[in-house]
Amino acid sequence: MKKTLKEIIEITGGEILGDHNTIITNVAGITEAKKGDITFISNPKYEQYINSTKASAIIIKESHKDKVKIPAIVSKNPYLSYAKIIMLIAKETEKHPSGISCNCSVSKSAKIGEKVAISDFVVIDESSKIGDGTIIYPNCYIGRNSKIGENCLIYPNVTIRENIIIGNNVIIHSGTVIGCDGFGYVQDNETLKKIPQIGIVEIADDVEIGANVTIDRAATGKTFIGRGTKIDNLVQIAHNVHIGENSIIVSQAGISGSTKIGNGVTIAGQAGLVGHITVGNGAVIAAQAGVIGDVAPKETVSGYPARPHKHAMKIYALLQKLPELFEEIKKLKK
Amino acid sequence: MKKTLKEIIEITGGEILGDHNTIITNVAGITEAKKGDITFISNPKYEQYINSTKASAIIIKESHKDKVKIPAIVSKNPYLSYAKIIMLIAKETEKHPSGISCNCSVSKSAKIGEKVAISDFVVIDESSKIGDGTIIYPNCYIGRNSKIGENCLIYPNVTIRENIIIGNNVIIHSGTVIGCDGFGYVQDNETLKKIPQIGIVEIADDVEIGANVTIDRAATGKTFIGRGTKIDNLVQIAHNVHIGENSIIVSQAGISGSTKIGNGVTIAGQAGLVGHITVGNGAVIAAQAGVIGDVAPKETVSGYPARPHKHAMKIYALLQKLPELFEEIKKLKK
Amino acid sequence: MKKTLKEIIEITGGEILGDHNTIITNVAGITEAKKGDITFISNPKYEQYINSTKASAIIIKESHKDKVKIPAIVSKNPYLSYAKIIMLIAKETEKHPSGISCNCSVSKSAKIGEKVAISDFVVIDESSKIGDGTIIYPNCYIGRNSKIGENCLIYPNVTIRENIIIGNNVIIHSGTVIGCDGFGYVQDNETLKKIPQIGIVEIADDVEIGANVTIDRAATGKTFIGRGTKIDNLVQIAHNVHIGENSIIVSQAGISGSTKIGNGVTIAGQAGLVGHITVGNGAVIAAQAGVIGDVAPKETVSGYPARPHKHAMKIYALLQKLPELFEEIKKLKK
Repeated sequence: MKKTLKEIIEITGGEILGDHNTIITNVAGITEAKKGDITFISNPKYEQYINSTKASAIIIKESHKDKVKIPAIVSKNPYLSYAKIIMLIAKETEKHPSGISCNCSVSKSAKIGEKVAISDFVVIDESSKIGDGTIIYPNCYIGRNSKIGENCLIYPNVTIRENIIIGNNVIIHSGTVIGCDGFGYVQDNETLKKIPQIGIVEIADDVEIGANVTIDRAATGKTFIGRGTKIDNLVQIAHNVHIGENSIIVSQAGISGSTKIGNGVTIAGQAGLVGHITVGNGAVIAAQAGVIGDVAPKETVSGYPARPHKHAMKIYALLQKLPELFEEIKKLKK
Repeated sequence: MKKTLKEIIEITGGEILGDHNTIITNVAGITEAKKGDITFISNPKYEQYINSTKASAIIIKESHKDKVKIPAIVSKNPYLSYAKIIMLIAKETEKHPSGISCNCSVSKSAKIGEKVAISDFVVIDESSKIGDGTIIYPNCYIGRNSKIGENCLIYPNVTIRENIIIGNNVIIHSGTVIGCDGFGYVQDNETLKKIPQIGIVEIADDVEIGANVTIDRAATGKTFIGRGTKIDNLVQIAHNVHIGENSIIVSQAGISGSTKIGNGVTIAGQAGLVGHITVGNGAVIAAQAGVIGDVAPKETVSGYPARPHKHAMKIYALLQKLPELFEEIKKLKK
Repeated sequence: MKKTLKEIIEITGGEILGDHNTIITNVAGITEAKKGDITFISNPKYEQYINSTKASAIIIKESHKDKVKIPAIVSKNPYLSYAKIIMLIAKETEKHPSGISCNCSVSKSAKIGEKVAISDFVVIDESSKIGDGTIIYPNCYIGRNSKIGENCLIYPNVTIRENIIIGNNVIIHSGTVIGCDGFGYVQDNETLKKIPQIGIVEIADDVEIGANVTIDRAATGKTFIGRGTKIDNLVQIAHNVHIGENSIIVSQAGISGSTKIGNGVTIAGQAGLVGHITVGNGAVIAAQAGVIGDVAPKETVSGYPARPHKHAMKIYALLQKLPELFEEIKKLKK
């Protein structure tokens, strides 16, 4: 990329401070940026670098207008403006496989759309369907009777089992397994009898799923991931979980069977949710929280067992004072 | 499937309430069921749906006999009865690969049993052995000198390293790695020297292992998983761990090196166990517990560091009262 | 292996107690050892077995000299001495693939070094480079323009995405994904817009990475793992994380974006670190700790939110006394 700030604001919007002809060739974080880079400021932790950055330009909010000494773009949402420049650079440089490899194995009964890429050592099993424009990287497996939508991107070593339904524009990262059996057994005397998992997984449009994620197929019925939801690496989603739209599930979180997650929910890293509960729209589950009951819409919970966050923080603060408390009680007793 | 209730009880046992000729074509959870489905009630949380369910029939316990208004099967173990119907449906619909693909790579020194399926892009390395009736899905790797028993089911993208021993009727889900090196180093001045992991993994009959699980090979000797034990997705089992029979290890739990787990133990999701401890038969480790010492047989522990569950619950309850406590002490001081 | 103790100390160093001609054929843990094995004692928990072990010889510290009744090697670092014998045995028995398989897919523009092994169903994409002596097991994917150093060992089913840089003598275990996209979105009204992750991952020499690990590529710039650092199974390393040299990250730990970890740091199992913090050289993060702020060099922290370990342990101890405390306050009030 090589653009002037003037050309850049055609993409990002906003207003220029300083030289409109400043040349921008790349993007970088505020502490790594060098000549030619444009950076941004959003996390207040990085405000201290606003004047030491070596970037050629910076994207800022109105409120930083007086502090900045290098060419800048003033934006209502600096992070979104910055993201738009990255999207431009990514378009220029990204390159995906194309065409059907002669080293893959596609069932005769599979229906393959237009402009599909199927790479080396991919297996597309019987009666499955791959939508137009979908790209499948090497060593993936698409099971019998599964349907992948249009313009999906499936990275290497992904496993999608049988009878799975995946929407359009879905991205699935490497090592992820969709439709493995739910963890269902019934005690029969001393031994555990497996309950076959005859349900499916359905993933709506615009979902992104990180690497080495596991999403279990339903016992009966379906496990469902709603439109626009984003799932980070190493997340576990058990059978019959239902997740709404535009929710965020951060790395290593785990959601137990039949739990229902609303729209716009955030589940932070390493949080765990028991089965058969409901998390309302817009709720936030803090990192490492252990959630054992329903969470109301827009509520933030943390700790184990998870409680409303403000209360939990108060308890944590008081905990730190326990040594003094025990001392005081000793004195009082005297 | 299309069966009357009368035919169904030949499989499930139990006694029919209502029309013996009710037609059942499928199974479903109590809230998703529709005409033609049979459902069941086991978790008391779902009792509220006993009369609003659209199922054509329901499997219940004796105690629900008076509450139910639709055709029903009265069973001592409704979940087991339900599971038996699912097993029937699964048998009718399941379809696995068969035969030896011409796109796989099988060493000349490997011994392949009767009726084995080896799918596309599978590698079976030197001197390994695959027992009769075992099915291996695409893109798996079976290492040198490893022995897989009879009637095993190995899903796509599984890695089984060298010198591993796997029993009969073992199911291994996608992305799982068996026999990766244990995490063993010795400090040598500033650097960490790798200790080669020359032991093995042995997995007994009837074990099921979820997706993206990691089971380390022993430093020396063996890591062992006992007969009938079931392991969920994303579980970590370190080198030289020994797990007994019919135990349950839920998703994202981690067991550190040389720890011994008894028979019939339950380790819930995201629990962590330090190394070199012993967990007795029938013990239960609650979700997210951090276990740093031995656990007695049949004991239930929770929290970090894990304590007997009743005590831990009492502490959690008192914690919620800390704000009041601090107030009271202020008053007392006055 | 078949060696006398006299030959063994040429490898291990140290001084022999007892018969110099004792024959050693293998190694084993103190409780599993049998005739012909040499064992060692390091963890005090196993001292009780010093005289019941069936090993033919034992490696001990000076301080155990008077307690031992079988032939022994007295060593300053018994574990290191033991490890050296294991290394010898491993060299005798280990066997890796060699040569370029005719079932792999190597791009014409890839540069492949001398004595490289590329196994069945491996894909080496455009413009990538594989250094001399590197061994790649079956079903791996090496992305466009990625560079792997010399004498690396890459186990089956590993995914290395595009533009990744890997040093020499790096070991990567099965199922691991290097360079998957960081988890970066920007809110745009109700929906989450993906921020393309255009950075890379760089891994220095002598790093070992366990199975089913995920290391995200940087948003911009790089995610970095320093020389000699060892990473266990199922660890998550987010975009732009920077890890120093000779650090240890134990299984199922997670490090959030842009966090900086020093040299010689230990992060124990299932610990979680928020983003944008700094962990100083030599710090220790206890298992399951939830770290939400900077950690000073050499500090040990534990608990959630993580606090200096001694303080955290004191709080945990007082917590157990809460029931008594509440009783006492009741009395005081009276």
